[in-house]
Amino acid sequence: MSLLVVGSIALDTVKTPKGELKEGLGGSATYFTIAASKFTNVSIVGVVGEDFPREYIELLRDCGANLDGLKVISGKTFRWHGVYEDEFGDPKTLLTELNVFEKFKPELPNHYKDLPFVFLANIHPALQLEVAKQMRKPKLIAADTIECWIKNEPDALREVISSVDMFFLNEAELRMITGEKSPLLGAEKLLSLGPKWIMLKRGVFGSMLIGKNGMFMLPAYPTTNVVDPTGAGDSFAGGMMGFIARVGDISFDTMKKAVAYGTIMGSFCVEGFSINRLVEVNQEMIKERLTELANMTRL
Amino acid sequence: MSLLVVGSIALDTVKTPKGELKEGLGGSATYFTIAASKFTNVSIVGVVGEDFPREYIELLRDCGANLDGLKVISGKTFRWHGVYEDEFGDPKTLLTELNVFEKFKPELPNHYKDLPFVFLANIHPALQLEVAKQMRKPKLIAADTIECWIKNEPDALREVISSVDMFFLNEAELRMITGEKSPLLGAEKLLSLGPKWIMLKRGVFGSMLIGKNGMFMLPAYPTTNVVDPTGAGDSFAGGMMGFIARVGDISFDTMKKAVAYGTIMGSFCVEGFSINRLVEVNQEMIKERLTELANMTRL
Repeated sequence: MSLLVVGSIALDTVKTPKGELKEGLGGSATYFTIAASKFTNVSIVGVVGEDFPREYIELLRDCGANLDGLKVISGKTFRWHGVYEDEFGDPKTLLTELNVFEKFKPELPNHYKDLPFVFLANIHPALQLEVAKQMRKPKLIAADTIECWIKNEPDALREVISSVDMFFLNEAELRMITGEKSPLLGAEKLLSLGPKWIMLKRGVFGSMLIGKNGMFMLPAYPTTNVVDPTGAGDSFAGGMMGFIARVGDISFDTMKKAVAYGTIMGSFCVEGFSINRLVEVNQEMIKERLTELANMTRL
Repeated sequence: MSLLVVGSIALDTVKTPKGELKEGLGGSATYFTIAASKFTNVSIVGVVGEDFPREYIELLRDCGANLDGLKVISGKTFRWHGVYEDEFGDPKTLLTELNVFEKFKPELPNHYKDLPFVFLANIHPALQLEVAKQMRKPKLIAADTIECWIKNEPDALREVISSVDMFFLNEAELRMITGEKSPLLGAEKLLSLGPKWIMLKRGVFGSMLIGKNGMFMLPAYPTTNVVDPTGAGDSFAGGMMGFIARVGDISFDTMKKAVAYGTIMGSFCVEGFSINRLVEVNQEMIKERLTELANMTRL
């Protein structure tokens, strides 16, 4: 129990060219937790409504998650409906019902505050900051964001970036925040605000980890069976942070391996709707895909 | 003298956010030759008009190119004018004047026909085929194409793909030809037509070499100084084919190293207008960038 995640837990209705799933388990904290659970146990801070299916609670518990920080409150669970016209592209949102998530204020059980590794998924930056400040002896705090906060809460987001050790974002977001078209120049601007690492997500093209004293690039694992890309970024973060938390250090070598495990968890995530493929993944499958990825990228 | 290129030689007028250059040396055969010249000597088949500056002829000769197959004929040289609103994006073509290139029929000097390594740059597929058929003992024939031939000459292009050992294209072109959104499934369709290798170019994201029995992915070298992306793909092909021709074999190991050299030559190309940066590149610079790229991608 060394990894904390704060984020959304949702019921997703998703349609892609490969099919459709109604009210599947979704949300950033969910994908993160299930991916990370292959490496370590995760403590969750989140909120769901009274309609949240008991089986989903059990599923998270079966993944070894600590749910002391998961509140079940009066009202309906956060719902999202999305359609992907192209399973390799971006979704069109048909409906976002924040419901109980609208007034979500993360409250950390006291024993969560000593956890060394923290992932602040894409909630309001002011809430991310509140959580970060409560941590007593963090070894690595990472945060993610979405376009909405970049546009509407640039100052609070800037403070988040300054307060965390690692910041996750994609290239469009990096351009939006920094105005730089070169990923390296953009990342340098963000690094100058304080974080040790910028984790640049490039979707099907892979990722770049950029630090003050080094960088690492890894292509995505080229799965041919993309069913539903929802949650790939959070699964990437989960695999990455899960591995870091298991190893317990933040050396460059650990970070590079963590990127590889993140890549692999992202590749599994997209092979099914909701968390259906992720939950099937075992250590043997992870090991096999890691070997493949290493072979495909070894110069 | 083991590498042959057939392609365009042009005078390019290019504007990007970083500046502008009028009537610079351009064309696929040009970029290819200068990039490949860092590894081997290249024999060119191409055509220019009487207005083609003598200094450009000298520049190609200084790169060790054999110009026995370069025709200077009555008329004007091929001209292209393009504008990049974003130096990381695609250009808008303002003008294409084919001039002497319009009736280009590649004629191979007899001694060219024994060359073992051949690159058919993006000319009409019927002409690519004509050249391929004249080669007497090729070890590796590679071809490239552009959208225009995919749309207007699909049958001839299919025959080219079936006739060559390695086919270069980008992801949009792969989707257009195969209808597949997954690069691996698309590449498999093309491999089933006959070639040993599909060389998938992904621009700033790098490249994938896909063969029947193995694949290799390499991110692009992340240069921060992108001035003009024109010619990056042909410089990539030049670095790759130049290295293969120097080594003289087509083992998977050679192919992977060749992708790395191609990547490096592509990265140098974009750092200047026309071939201005490419011509400055020396062995020391290539070696240094190769070491950097290896370090940045080593898991």
